[in-house]
Amino acid sequence: MSVTVVGSIAFDAVRTPSGARERMLGGAAVHFSLAASFFDEVRVVGPVGDDFGEAEYAVLHGRGVNTDDIEHVEGGTTFFWSGVYGDNLNSRETLETDLNVFEHFEPKLSQASRAADVLFLANIVPALQLEVRRQCDRARFAALDSMDLWINIAREDLVKAIGSVDCVILNDEEVELLTGRPTVVSGAREILAMGPSAVVVKQGKYGAGIITHEGTFWLPAFPLEQVVDPTGAGDTFAGGFVGYIAAHPDAPIGLELLCRAMAYGSALASFNVEEFGTERVARLTGAEIAARVAELQRITAFTDAPVALR
Amino acid sequence: MSVTVVGSIAFDAVRTPSGARERMLGGAAVHFSLAASFFDEVRVVGPVGDDFGEAEYAVLHGRGVNTDDIEHVEGGTTFFWSGVYGDNLNSRETLETDLNVFEHFEPKLSQASRAADVLFLANIVPALQLEVRRQCDRARFAALDSMDLWINIAREDLVKAIGSVDCVILNDEEVELLTGRPTVVSGAREILAMGPSAVVVKQGKYGAGIITHEGTFWLPAFPLEQVVDPTGAGDTFAGGFVGYIAAHPDAPIGLELLCRAMAYGSALASFNVEEFGTERVARLTGAEIAARVAELQRITAFTDAPVALR
Repeated sequence: MSVTVVGSIAFDAVRTPSGARERMLGGAAVHFSLAASFFDEVRVVGPVGDDFGEAEYAVLHGRGVNTDDIEHVEGGTTFFWSGVYGDNLNSRETLETDLNVFEHFEPKLSQASRAADVLFLANIVPALQLEVRRQCDRARFAALDSMDLWINIAREDLVKAIGSVDCVILNDEEVELLTGRPTVVSGAREILAMGPSAVVVKQGKYGAGIITHEGTFWLPAFPLEQVVDPTGAGDTFAGGFVGYIAAHPDAPIGLELLCRAMAYGSALASFNVEEFGTERVARLTGAEIAARVAELQRITAFTDAPVALR
Repeated sequence: MSVTVVGSIAFDAVRTPSGARERMLGGAAVHFSLAASFFDEVRVVGPVGDDFGEAEYAVLHGRGVNTDDIEHVEGGTTFFWSGVYGDNLNSRETLETDLNVFEHFEPKLSQASRAADVLFLANIVPALQLEVRRQCDRARFAALDSMDLWINIAREDLVKAIGSVDCVILNDEEVELLTGRPTVVSGAREILAMGPSAVVVKQGKYGAGIITHEGTFWLPAFPLEQVVDPTGAGDTFAGGFVGYIAAHPDAPIGLELLCRAMAYGSALASFNVEEFGTERVARLTGAEIAARVAELQRITAFTDAPVALR
């Protein structure tokens, strides 16, 4: 079995209260791939330029990610993003976005990528997400991410893309923007009505929730003493979440499996933000992930005890 | 056993996306009292003016709250607050704050109120919190709330007041403002160093966490389709949390008890925001609270299943 992810491969420059990096490996598809690689074989589809070299491939290969479908655009330059985070990491300002080779990206999937058991459509133009979904029509589970830009300028295509997948992964502000509903529960129900069977609502440093027709599940973020760089946390979460589902090809995709998948996604995301870019996840071990999931379970569990209520 | 709460008793005027109220019963001590009344005998200490009448007392007496220590200031007017909430209820703007009789409030506690087993110091001038704490020095558990104003203009007194209680209940922004730490975990540890054995961090619609020397616990907010009026949610949470502890006089005040108390606080708060002001909690039943705690447990619990990590 395998996971295919289509999305951006990038160099990021970030400044956070903990320091800065001038040029680090990033992009949604990269963060997703590294996280999902703990669970299944991952194929990453996305464009890079001449500046994308051995060092970057080595990070992906170091985690066993299959890079055969990375498209090298001759004479091109890799997508570049730079941003600066505020003091408490709640806010970030984009300083520069150079789409470069990503601007005219047309995903070309090999037969192997099309045969994926599980598909993740990272944040790209909704029309392309829909096109890739059609190419990967045998995937038993497909999820997508998006962003405010597409909600604002390509809503119709986005709603079609949403209708083509099993699961939508958005943050709470995006759910509100897409649906106009003031609570994530009512917003998520509206998204379920567009076709998917599950909506994951990311709440940044607070945690995440999932809403399905079966019920809901809510998980706080793993509490950290220090957060170094939030870049890629959402895609790392998605990689752990989708990867966990991919690792269970025989399990019914119901709320029980999805809850566990959320816990793995949260654990992965919490590691991601401990260091810059891909630095922490690139050298993460399965034992560390398992220990953090167990800890997350411990610090979110409570037992009720009957009390006489007056 | 009994709970004493000292704080504001108010009339609030609010406008939210769901509607408006020109004049409704409110104030930290009122919201706290109603929530705590499900668990133990509650004595409320605070000042009111001539405009505070039978209808308001009836709400408190309806839940069995002891109002003997409500101080009626002859010729005075009750504390009045008005505010308007933004579309998604994330932001609120204060339109008017008339302290009125609250401005020169000097808490006068009867012997019965001083003999409280459990004490809650709602958000008032820190020097008064400290004074009340000294009067109630036999309380086996004391907690306090505060606000940005006191952190900014009475920090030294606030730190002393914090040092005099067992538990501090603040929202995440207040923890950050008080400690200058960028994460709630590091901020809460700094507050623990001021003396309390527990710090509860409220995260608004996202939930809450508790940090003690023993460990931490994190609980998402109960998810609601619709939120009508968030006014008083934090004090209602505190009332459920502190009330639950009061209801267990023989239980050690360790993390296990505090986790359960958080669940009851969260359940109470979730009811409070379903309607304006005290309207929902005033007619709440113990069975409804118990059912919501059980549901909160169900939608936050997950079981881990071993997975082969690559």
